[in-house]
Amino acid sequence: MSKICVGVLGATGMVGQRYIHLLENHPWFEVTYVAASPRSAGKPYKEAVANRWLIGSDIPQGVADLTVYDAGDVSSAKGKCSFVFSALEMDKEAIKALESSYAAFGIPVVSNASANRWTQDVPMLIPEINSSHIDIIASQQKKRGWDKGFIVVKPNCSLQTYMMPLYSLIKAGYPVKRMIITTLQAVSGAGYPGVSSFDMIDNIIPYIGGEEEKTEKECLKILGNVSGEKIVDASFPLVSSTCTRVPVIDGHTACVNLEFDLAENKKPSLEEIEKIFTSFKSVPQELKLPSAPDHPIVVRREENRPQPRRDRDVEKGMASVVGRLRKCNIFDVKFVALSHNTKRGAALGGILNAELLKAKGFFDKLV
Amino acid sequence: MSKICVGVLGATGMVGQRYIHLLENHPWFEVTYVAASPRSAGKPYKEAVANRWLIGSDIPQGVADLTVYDAGDVSSAKGKCSFVFSALEMDKEAIKALESSYAAFGIPVVSNASANRWTQDVPMLIPEINSSHIDIIASQQKKRGWDKGFIVVKPNCSLQTYMMPLYSLIKAGYPVKRMIITTLQAVSGAGYPGVSSFDMIDNIIPYIGGEEEKTEKECLKILGNVSGEKIVDASFPLVSSTCTRVPVIDGHTACVNLEFDLAENKKPSLEEIEKIFTSFKSVPQELKLPSAPDHPIVVRREENRPQPRRDRDVEKGMASVVGRLRKCNIFDVKFVALSHNTKRGAALGGILNAELLKAKGFFDKLV
Amino acid sequence: MSKICVGVLGATGMVGQRYIHLLENHPWFEVTYVAASPRSAGKPYKEAVANRWLIGSDIPQGVADLTVYDAGDVSSAKGKCSFVFSALEMDKEAIKALESSYAAFGIPVVSNASANRWTQDVPMLIPEINSSHIDIIASQQKKRGWDKGFIVVKPNCSLQTYMMPLYSLIKAGYPVKRMIITTLQAVSGAGYPGVSSFDMIDNIIPYIGGEEEKTEKECLKILGNVSGEKIVDASFPLVSSTCTRVPVIDGHTACVNLEFDLAENKKPSLEEIEKIFTSFKSVPQELKLPSAPDHPIVVRREENRPQPRRDRDVEKGMASVVGRLRKCNIFDVKFVALSHNTKRGAALGGILNAELLKAKGFFDKLV
Amino acid sequence: MSKICVGVLGATGMVGQRYIHLLENHPWFEVTYVAASPRSAGKPYKEAVANRWLIGSDIPQGVADLTVYDAGDVSSAKGKCSFVFSALEMDKEAIKALESSYAAFGIPVVSNASANRWTQDVPMLIPEINSSHIDIIASQQKKRGWDKGFIVVKPNCSLQTYMMPLYSLIKAGYPVKRMIITTLQAVSGAGYPGVSSFDMIDNIIPYIGGEEEKTEKECLKILGNVSGEKIVDASFPLVSSTCTRVPVIDGHTACVNLEFDLAENKKPSLEEIEKIFTSFKSVPQELKLPSAPDHPIVVRREENRPQPRRDRDVEKGMASVVGRLRKCNIFDVKFVALSHNTKRGAALGGILNAELLKAKGFFDKLV
Repeated sequence: MSKICVGVLGATGMVGQRYIHLLENHPWFEVTYVAASPRSAGKPYKEAVANRWLIGSDIPQGVADLTVYDAGDVSSAKGKCSFVFSALEMDKEAIKALESSYAAFGIPVVSNASANRWTQDVPMLIPEINSSHIDIIASQQKKRGWDKGFIVVKPNCSLQTYMMPLYSLIKAGYPVKRMIITTLQAVSGAGYPGVSSFDMIDNIIPYIGGEEEKTEKECLKILGNVSGEKIVDASFPLVSSTCTRVPVIDGHTACVNLEFDLAENKKPSLEEIEKIFTSFKSVPQELKLPSAPDHPIVVRREENRPQPRRDRDVEKGMASVVGRLRKCNIFDVKFVALSHNTKRGAALGGILNAELLKAKGFFDKLV
Repeated sequence: MSKICVGVLGATGMVGQRYIHLLENHPWFEVTYVAASPRSAGKPYKEAVANRWLIGSDIPQGVADLTVYDAGDVSSAKGKCSFVFSALEMDKEAIKALESSYAAFGIPVVSNASANRWTQDVPMLIPEINSSHIDIIASQQKKRGWDKGFIVVKPNCSLQTYMMPLYSLIKAGYPVKRMIITTLQAVSGAGYPGVSSFDMIDNIIPYIGGEEEKTEKECLKILGNVSGEKIVDASFPLVSSTCTRVPVIDGHTACVNLEFDLAENKKPSLEEIEKIFTSFKSVPQELKLPSAPDHPIVVRREENRPQPRRDRDVEKGMASVVGRLRKCNIFDVKFVALSHNTKRGAALGGILNAELLKAKGFFDKLV
Repeated sequence: MSKICVGVLGATGMVGQRYIHLLENHPWFEVTYVAASPRSAGKPYKEAVANRWLIGSDIPQGVADLTVYDAGDVSSAKGKCSFVFSALEMDKEAIKALESSYAAFGIPVVSNASANRWTQDVPMLIPEINSSHIDIIASQQKKRGWDKGFIVVKPNCSLQTYMMPLYSLIKAGYPVKRMIITTLQAVSGAGYPGVSSFDMIDNIIPYIGGEEEKTEKECLKILGNVSGEKIVDASFPLVSSTCTRVPVIDGHTACVNLEFDLAENKKPSLEEIEKIFTSFKSVPQELKLPSAPDHPIVVRREENRPQPRRDRDVEKGMASVVGRLRKCNIFDVKFVALSHNTKRGAALGGILNAELLKAKGFFDKLV
Repeated sequence: MSKICVGVLGATGMVGQRYIHLLENHPWFEVTYVAASPRSAGKPYKEAVANRWLIGSDIPQGVADLTVYDAGDVSSAKGKCSFVFSALEMDKEAIKALESSYAAFGIPVVSNASANRWTQDVPMLIPEINSSHIDIIASQQKKRGWDKGFIVVKPNCSLQTYMMPLYSLIKAGYPVKRMIITTLQAVSGAGYPGVSSFDMIDNIIPYIGGEEEKTEKECLKILGNVSGEKIVDASFPLVSSTCTRVPVIDGHTACVNLEFDLAENKKPSLEEIEKIFTSFKSVPQELKLPSAPDHPIVVRREENRPQPRRDRDVEKGMASVVGRLRKCNIFDVKFVALSHNTKRGAALGGILNAELLKAKGFFDKLV
């Protein structure tokens, strides 16, 4: 089977580089089109990222010699790819406009950017949780007069630590009322150059701009339902979060206090919760998507886990690793959850979204 | 005025070294007696800590040549000091026994150790909060048949980040019902060698043995009241905490979610809370104790403060530095609080306790 | 083909754990015997390392349930393995005695320990450099009356950064007279718990006990020649080193200044040197040993490489990564060399030694 | 005595902030004029640096409300200060032109910038070494037709680690022929934001642009002599260096190998060298300049010192701290030297230069 040709918008940035790195040797997809700012346009990719390639291993050979196109010149993608990953790093309105241009041009956009997260008919996907949200795509296309193009997005990296554990409980019949969360987030989440080393050695920064609002709101859209032409947010759980930056390269950690929306005698025991976490599987596992983790939630029983450096790469960096599951004397339970912010939380999460769409028949032929 | 002679038990350990360092040039106290394990006994202090002196500046000259005594030989302290700071690092029962021996021998013990924190008639002091707990000392002496000796302790370092902010609210008439807290604690809190660098570079450890229990329980004793022969714990607030270790040298950070025990219309506004924090003063400030901070609570309004490296040393390392004061959409307010764990949280906090006792007339003459 | 059964001495320590981790799925070897201190003896391996397993991925299944034997009980290895890897962590004399016991018992010892590095008839192997030193084994066995057993060792991790680049130049006909070297070494080189995080955050330690002497001496044995019953050290190059510890998890870096022992007009150009490095191959590559790197020396031309985090894992962690090759205005050339201290520099280097011995016919049958 | 009014050019940048911080409470100087880019011009200083104030303690009160002037508008300094510290962060030619404008306008410039380091009649001062170079100022003024204005500079921060030890040996009659040096430099040396935390956690960067050339060349000008209208470089020592960046906040470390230009029997012993280092004093000590260290060179005898975090602040951050003094088996001696790069190496070094000039009668009256 020949592979599906894919493009990467914002290919020279940090997230774009990760897409290109992670798509090397992908069984279904092959990068055949790279686009970035006008400054890089016309250069071979390897020249455009010379001295800016941030990843340890070398530039994949198939991409090194691709010519970089101006991402603003949508027509340059014609005939070169079946869909694009958007890793654009521009202001929100510019990204929104550009992603729409690609979609209008007939090229589906699987986006890593936050610009379209709050567009009501754009699904914000975690395939283990809300794969059914792709049903909104037909309506999205119809409303805008798009033929084959469409846009899907992924949520912010910080909530991917606890969304699957949360959803697994809800799915098992244990609705959640409230969660108080503190995150300890890795510096790679801030892009490159991101946080200055002068701010990060022997220090933590107890603030990440916009992150707490995202954490508190995105949760509800992800857990929402497609209703007619839009996705209607869930009403619960209520989330209150404090987001901090810590001197860790990769891997966001969340300390979670969770209260069920159930009578005391209906609440699950710690044993039941652990079993729900451990046995959780969903659509990506059923469809055997290439980037899907075998176990989306991994439970560690050691008292001092999960730890970013030791646990972020389990299940190819696609699992929520949960530990320290215990009673909370104010809410019901407490636990610590970890996920790899640049894999599950960014590029590999985007790739999983594309795999879901491919499996559901969205990318059959070259545009 | 000649200074009061003081001893340091556990003088060669990390906390003991800090006492000796911080007491250099103290206006009231002078170290004249140092005791440690039998291994060090008989040596000059400078030899006993050779290659183990962990502090940047040199060993204070007045202490370098003191002979180290065996801490187990209580009588060796006779005539050498008016009281001792206990920085003993042994198992709890041994510390308890040894501290009692010194007290029985007539030497007051101002302890940094956790051994006697739960002894009902031993006050656990934060002088800005519960200086009145020293009233229990007379009863403590009487009950045990001690003449001049007694024991006071200080609480765990992690809760010193938020105890003064909490107390200032209660004192201002705003009782607190519940607090959910996540701490990010510095490595110096684990002693020396403490946490391996192999565990701490590019990593966080989401667990500190015993710390969450201490955080949750000690709060209530500190806020309690002397009643007859014991200190009766307060009933509120309920505390639930998650304690983590982060790659920071000094300075514990706590992310706090707080709910008042008040009707909605009686709760203070953010402005009122900030004013309460900023204007908080108490006994140590009134008594002008040498180690007391001018402002026990310092409020930072920048969105990204407090930060350990930038804020830990404000007010000589004796303040709670509070920032990010904002509404919580589950409880009432959220804030981030920081304090210097080896100063306010350990040795300098112990020294402040001794200053309080001195000011109250407990150390007038050489034993 | 069934695999060769191997044992690991010191299996519960940090280096022992790495052997077990790296031997999982090895094409030739299978761990069938684990031995450690009497404290661990009798327990299943997974219990013996419970809460002490330091590696991110889980304990290999085939080893988790093996019973741990007392390493001092040599006879317990009988019939269980064809040879042992020694990752013993004891004092030198004890290791020396124990390794000899295994060899005397008929079990070859491929050692990671430094105890036998200076035993004159024990080869200290870097297979790309001195694979011919295994010729001394026959003499070693004869002299001691050992039948099938023998001992080989590997050198200290710090000099593996620059030994292959150095040797490649000598082999190409450019003898080296002197090298002045400063190393920046990772904390994993100190074992576990090793360096305290209190010493390593916002700090470097400009001293590693014994390391400079090893760096300066071991070089000459490795470059020496088998002569009769012993290995005669080379006379050159003279090495002077300063060894420092830096806050890096894995990957030792060496800053090298090198002077050739040649007339000015006979010295190689930078282009020739780069070509020598890039094209260097040796015995492990010819024998296609499973752990051998395809390119033992990898040259990076970017001005800011090699970097530990980005380059340590190239070629499975078995390469010397060289960069910043340039003229020295005092000696002839300067460069920066990096190697993975726990892979090439420790366990995987030991495994490569065993692969060489296997390929040369030393481990044909179960003992 | 009223203080001398001083200005700071580039007052909003990182180095400018440090000048303002370090000049708070200076006995001789008072900041009365601050200038920066046009973007900041017209604002109160505290507003111009809002959210960009990088120092832990607060903005000094006397400066917080000063109006920031456009540094390009030289006439705005008229009547406001007797001289300026230049902490300009622009391209070299622009700095050169602007510093000359101030000097031509009659305002002496004590510069932290590298722009004028190679101007032949501009002294590059380390007051302990070459205070006599200020004799060139008269010729500098005459040649350019400047009346009261002039320019002095300070050298790069990295060589301040070893320049005083080197000079103390030369001064004691032991000329030095060659030095091979590897530096491990702190991130604060790169300015702000400087090095990305993504590059610096669990990593070192073996390259700092331009630093090795500066290290090798500036040494010779500092050791040179005023001859007529220019400073003639010294011929020795030859320096070869490798400069690396390490995860340390403040404090550059240099590993030095040093060869004397003397017959073997004329070379000093290690004891003599230590004595030379320990007893070294020079002009700033004789003049009792306020920022001069009592001991410009501090020798540590512990085997694992100097360490950046423990030793950088000794002598107010103005000393070279030397340790590990030992024989080199290639050159003559090896040692490790440390200095505080943002104190001695930058702002406080600049202030010491100004103190020297003041003591020599250069800043007597308001311009």
